Amino acid sequence: MSLEGLSINLATVRQQWGLKDAVEACLKLGINAVAPWRDQVEKQGLAESARIIKDNGVRVTGLCRGGMFPAATPEGLHAAIDDNKRAVDEAAALGADCLVLVVGGLPVGSKDIVGARQMVADGIAATLPHARACGIPLAIEPLHPMYAADRACVNTLGQALDLCDALGDGIGVAIDVYHVWWDPDLATQIARAGRNRQILAHHICDWLVPTKDLLLDRGMMGDGVIDLPGIRRQIEAAGFLGPQEVEIFSAENWWKRDGMEVLQTCIDRFRTVC
Amino acid sequence: MSLEGLSINLATVRQQWGLKDAVEACLKLGINAVAPWRDQVEKQGLAESARIIKDNGVRVTGLCRGGMFPAATPEGLHAAIDDNKRAVDEAAALGADCLVLVVGGLPVGSKDIVGARQMVADGIAATLPHARACGIPLAIEPLHPMYAADRACVNTLGQALDLCDALGDGIGVAIDVYHVWWDPDLATQIARAGRNRQILAHHICDWLVPTKDLLLDRGMMGDGVIDLPGIRRQIEAAGFLGPQEVEIFSAENWWKRDGMEVLQTCIDRFRTVC
Repeated sequence: MSLEGLSINLATVRQQWGLKDAVEACLKLGINAVAPWRDQVEKQGLAESARIIKDNGVRVTGLCRGGMFPAATPEGLHAAIDDNKRAVDEAAALGADCLVLVVGGLPVGSKDIVGARQMVADGIAATLPHARACGIPLAIEPLHPMYAADRACVNTLGQALDLCDALGDGIGVAIDVYHVWWDPDLATQIARAGRNRQILAHHICDWLVPTKDLLLDRGMMGDGVIDLPGIRRQIEAAGFLGPQEVEIFSAENWWKRDGMEVLQTCIDRFRTVC
Repeated sequence: MSLEGLSINLATVRQQWGLKDAVEACLKLGINAVAPWRDQVEKQGLAESARIIKDNGVRVTGLCRGGMFPAATPEGLHAAIDDNKRAVDEAAALGADCLVLVVGGLPVGSKDIVGARQMVADGIAATLPHARACGIPLAIEPLHPMYAADRACVNTLGQALDLCDALGDGIGVAIDVYHVWWDPDLATQIARAGRNRQILAHHICDWLVPTKDLLLDRGMMGDGVIDLPGIRRQIEAAGFLGPQEVEIFSAENWWKRDGMEVLQTCIDRFRTVC
């Protein structure tokens, strides 16, 4: 399998390298696509990051992340929208395929998830015209329901697509297997997304049994229970042929290993189990 | 608020008491409904447990738990069905309102969640005639998607109701707020369950932020982010007026406290936040 189909989300090696070193390591191993996080870009400098990416002909499969809309006050929501517009500008400077949105959970002290979801819809609607003008698609990433309170109140692919359908052009979804693998409606919703060309990114890792931490215990492909080839087949049948982007948060394992070992493992597993 | 509407799932005080002491403590505080687990019943003895419950006029809002159907071999599934029939007999001996089913996750080594779900459907179908004959309704409990791999591959109320509809009479759902509070389709599915009289139990606790453990860090009502009165209103509007059953797994907090303090806190929170 050619490495054309592989991208590395730089969160996977965030404890090992900054953006420049991570990109160089990827290139050394034949990986030509990455997805950086905004803090990594900021640390490297936006102009310098863009230069590193463009000079090396690297594809950016997404910038992580915009979103985090729900706020306890109208001013908070307004500030979030402003920040999302800046994120769109950064994605444009990097030539990213899309800006990934982790939409946000409940405002502090709130138990109103319906209200939070409305703030997400309002926030994305307010960001979208700027994104369209910049030519940067917004990619809503439905997050696993265990993050509904504190990270994202969009928790299924179907819910994300309902939002996309209501918002119109210039918006789609990032499908991360970690968040959606359990969903009994997954195959139906992937096919639906395909019909409207709404799949913008495909993230991979694995669900470990047992999972020891809600956030930082994601597994390397093949080490868990997710049917990665099965989901990939559905996504390709739906018309998305872009790279599979490896995104692994792993405080106690992969973040502690040598970065080249991590990347080489990503390549090996991509070739054998994805 | 009368304590008629309150039941204690005995898992909530499983580190403090056996069945007999737990029932006596509940009665002392005016709580007349409980839901025991099979291991607690076995330790007390089935006949003795039934005697304690009947002599004291205690309502049993459910027996926990049947289920755990998916298996690596046909023999494994067959053994699970036999065990579920025994669980039905125990529920009948206790006069329980229902037998709660935690349906099971993936067999060891499997990545086939579709296949696991079929085994669940087959297993319940094979158990149901005996349950009907005994007059014990089966209550499928959809579990939070974070348990899809290792505890239950039925993960939304809608999915559980689809199963019920396919299986016919004598089966319904146990709605535990912890598992379903995040679901964007929750209100619709509660109303659907009401139309067909399929709500058999209503479990309560709370979702803590942060949640430190996937299994054993459930919160006391009021300490988390779940809109308990809002969900209760939907459930009552759907026609279920039975007790709210407190089920809290809490290794580092409530399981370490004095049992009477835990029960008194359940009562106080039931009166003020449910």
